[in-house]
This record gives sequence, structure tokens and C-alpha cells, in this order.
Amino acid sequence: MSRPLIFISNDDGVNAPGLAHLIESVAEFGEVVAVAPATEQSGKASSLTVESPLRLTERAPIAGAKVYAVNGTPVDCVKLGLHVLFSDGRKPDIMLSGVNHGSNSGNSVIYSGTMGAVMEACMVGIPAIGYSLLHHSIAADFTHTTPFIKEITARVLAGGLPADVCLNVNFPAKCVPKGIKVVRAARGYWTEEYARCTDPHGKPYYWLTGHFHNEEPDNDGTDEYWLSREYVSVVPVRPDQSDIKAIPVIEKLLCL
Amino acid sequence: MSRPLIFISNDDGVNAPGLAHLIESVAEFGEVVAVAPATEQSGKASSLTVESPLRLTERAPIAGAKVYAVNGTPVDCVKLGLHVLFSDGRKPDIMLSGVNHGSNSGNSVIYSGTMGAVMEACMVGIPAIGYSLLHHSIAADFTHTTPFIKEITARVLAGGLPADVCLNVNFPAKCVPKGIKVVRAARGYWTEEYARCTDPHGKPYYWLTGHFHNEEPDNDGTDEYWLSREYVSVVPVRPDQSDIKAIPVIEKLLCL
Repeated sequence: MSRPLIFISNDDGVNAPGLAHLIESVAEFGEVVAVAPATEQSGKASSLTVESPLRLTERAPIAGAKVYAVNGTPVDCVKLGLHVLFSDGRKPDIMLSGVNHGSNSGNSVIYSGTMGAVMEACMVGIPAIGYSLLHHSIAADFTHTTPFIKEITARVLAGGLPADVCLNVNFPAKCVPKGIKVVRAARGYWTEEYARCTDPHGKPYYWLTGHFHNEEPDNDGTDEYWLSREYVSVVPVRPDQSDIKAIPVIEKLLCL
Repeated sequence: MSRPLIFISNDDGVNAPGLAHLIESVAEFGEVVAVAPATEQSGKASSLTVESPLRLTERAPIAGAKVYAVNGTPVDCVKLGLHVLFSDGRKPDIMLSGVNHGSNSGNSVIYSGTMGAVMEACMVGIPAIGYSLLHHSIAADFTHTTPFIKEITARVLAGGLPADVCLNVNFPAKCVPKGIKVVRAARGYWTEEYARCTDPHGKPYYWLTGHFHNEEPDNDGTDEYWLSREYVSVVPVRPDQSDIKAIPVIEKLLCL
């Protein structure tokens, strides 16, 4: 039996320590191929490059894994990587993204390049998991995530995932997690979002800032609740956002 | 009673004819303010600008509407527009995006900047609708969409939308639609995605191409089915992709 084929990407870029950590954490499970953005692509969601050409460039291997860079987004990495590197018909047994330097909990998933890559793989039928750490630093310590990455990856490799569902896994920063909770994303929004500055010519410009306002901090069915209590959160994510339950409501609204 | 406040954006950019068409179609319903990307932002999904500053620049009015450009993505336009232009506490009564030059049916919604803007507005509690035409041309004829835009917009202005749900409306190209169908997105994926070229130095580069493969062409519960039969499709879209039904399945898989 051949070893599992493990396809890895991220959104912090090919040089991010979190990518190396993820590769090293799962290298024992199979053949690893990583395709990551050449530059940081945080907040790129599922965006893809339409108007300019892409290149795929081999980089130095990490922990025995082949590593490539793409001058594009995380979704470009997944699409182009699968297209070019597996044109012989091989299909990865699993796709992993991360480990992201920073949280993808709450509604951040909608902006997340880490999860954009995961959903892209999910939509072509590859079991896929995004891993993120609640710490933005390039020097973040990922040590405590290793046993959880190994366990979750091994169980998904063995048991697969339901069709059209992928996983969004977040780790608390700087502590040994107390356990794993499978939950939904906390409902909330970002607030006080822009700092206003003035350029030397007197014209205003704006920098994105702000913080996540959790609308349900006491709800133990949500990721934010358990992350703040030092648990690992696992959110099952469905790329298809169609809301079938709302169809009759909208039909009535439109008098159909 | 004050006139409704209508906030408009798009992903084809502030100069796109589809934006002017949308403004002109709904101008009679209230006060219109449009904030659109300075340059084309197709395929940008919910991406946002993290690492560079944004500017908001007033442009010439269209059909009496105030129009602004932002040097960013559709989500940047919504976030920054709401932050700067409505800092007096006013909140738009409705948000509209488009009319997009090109389809956002099937799973294209996940890559769509048009729908990225719509979901952003939805997440802060504004009823929001994305309008797209199944024709990519900058010179596309939008005439047949006008009565449907008026009708759908008026009904949502009057009746609102369910919490956390927005609408993805697609119009067939070049025909008078036979009616409106409220459906879900067709299941499918993109195939044969990259054209391989060789540069003058012999190195390969790749352009995104390919077409949508509909996995359920005969399913009358999907948008693609009705669009191909000259109907307008309306898909209720929920930005939160958490799959609550999958939680017990994943708990079992992870032996929790």
C-alpha cells in the first residue's frame, strides 16, 4: 500500500514558520507536498488571480517534503498545485493549511486565506483541515499544537470527512490545551475598524484596525467560548453557503 | 418619513456600466450612496486590505447618487464606506452590489467580490442583495434586468430579509426572463483550469481558464437549471459556513 499523499498550503507564505511546523508535524504520516504563496496573503479569503499569469517555483525541501511557491493567493496555490503537480491523476488523500499565525475563529473564517485554501480542496473532494494559532507573531511558539495536529490529521486520514465539509481548527496561544471541542463559529462582527491618518498634503487615509465583538460570549456551543478557556476548537465548515431553509421565506417575500 | 438610504457597491469597479445601471434602476426608491473599487476586483471574494492604507475619493455623481472610489476590494468598500460616510450613526436600509458583468451562479459565489460585499453588509445587519448578469462583456445589455431589480429591491426594502441571510440574484443574458426561481447553488467544480505558456526564457507560466462542471444539470432545485431556461435565479446565502449538523459526526470521528 502506498503512503498517503498529503498536500499542504497556507496564507502566511512559503517562508512562514507555521508552514514548516505543519509539515514537520505530519511528515511521518506520508508523502508531503507543499504549495504556498510566495508572499504573505492574509485576509485574501477565496480570492483568485484572474488577470495575470502564475508561476510555480520549487523551493528548498522541508523535513523531506517537496515545497513550491506560487506568486498568487492560497486558492491559486491549491488550484495550480493540483493542476500541475498531480496531472498524472494522483489525488491527495488529505489537504492541510497553516499553521496560521493568528486566529481564524468567529466570523474571521470568511476573510481567511488559510480557510480559502481548505475550502478549495474540499470543493474538489479532498478531506481538508485548516489549522490556526491565536497568536500573530512570526516568532509564535507552536510546540503545544503538535500532538493535536497529529491526532486530528491521523483521524481524518483514517476516517475521512463527510462530503462537502471541511474543518477549521483553532489553537489557544501559549498553553497546553485542555481538550478539543467541536462547535460552531461564534456570532459577531468587527468594530471600530479604521484608524484615520492625514498625509503630508492634508489628505486623509485609513488603516484597517478594530477588534472582534463577540455577540454571544456565554454560549458554550461556540469556538470563542472554548478558545478563551484554553481548549482547541474544531468547526465543521461547509463551503456552499446556500441556505435551503430560507427558500420558502424568500419565495413568500417575493410573492412567488 | 425620510427616504430609504440605499448603499451600493460592486467588484467590477467604479467605472463599470453595471454599477451605473444598478444606481439608475433603484434611484427612485431613495437616497443612493455608492462606494466601489477604483479598479476591477473580480474574483476577490471577501478579501480585505490589511497591509496598506486605503483612500476614499469622491467621483462624479450618477443619477443623483453620491459616488466614491476606494483603492481596495469590495469588502474594503463596504467596511470603509460604512465607517467614514455613516459615522453619524445612520445605517443603510439596504445594500446592493453589482450589476456584475458575469455569472455568480453555482459555486462561483465563493470567489465573488460582488457577493463578498453583500455578505459583509449582511454580517452587520443590513439587508443585502447581489445582482449579476450571465454576460462578461463591458458592453453587456442590462435592459431586461431593470424590472426585476426594481421588484426584488422594493420587496426587500418593504419586507426585510431573515437575519443572517442575503440574496444572490443572477440574470440570464440577452433575453426577457420568464420569471423568478428561489433555489440553491448548483453543485459543481471548475475543470481544465490553467493554460500553460512558455516565456522567452523557456520557463512555464500559467493563466487561469477552465469552465464550470455542473454535477447536477437536471436538478430543478438549482440556480444553473433555471438560468439555462431563461429564469432569474435567487439563492438565499448565509455568510456563516458553520455546519451544525456535522458536529456530532465530527465528534464521533475525533472520539470525543
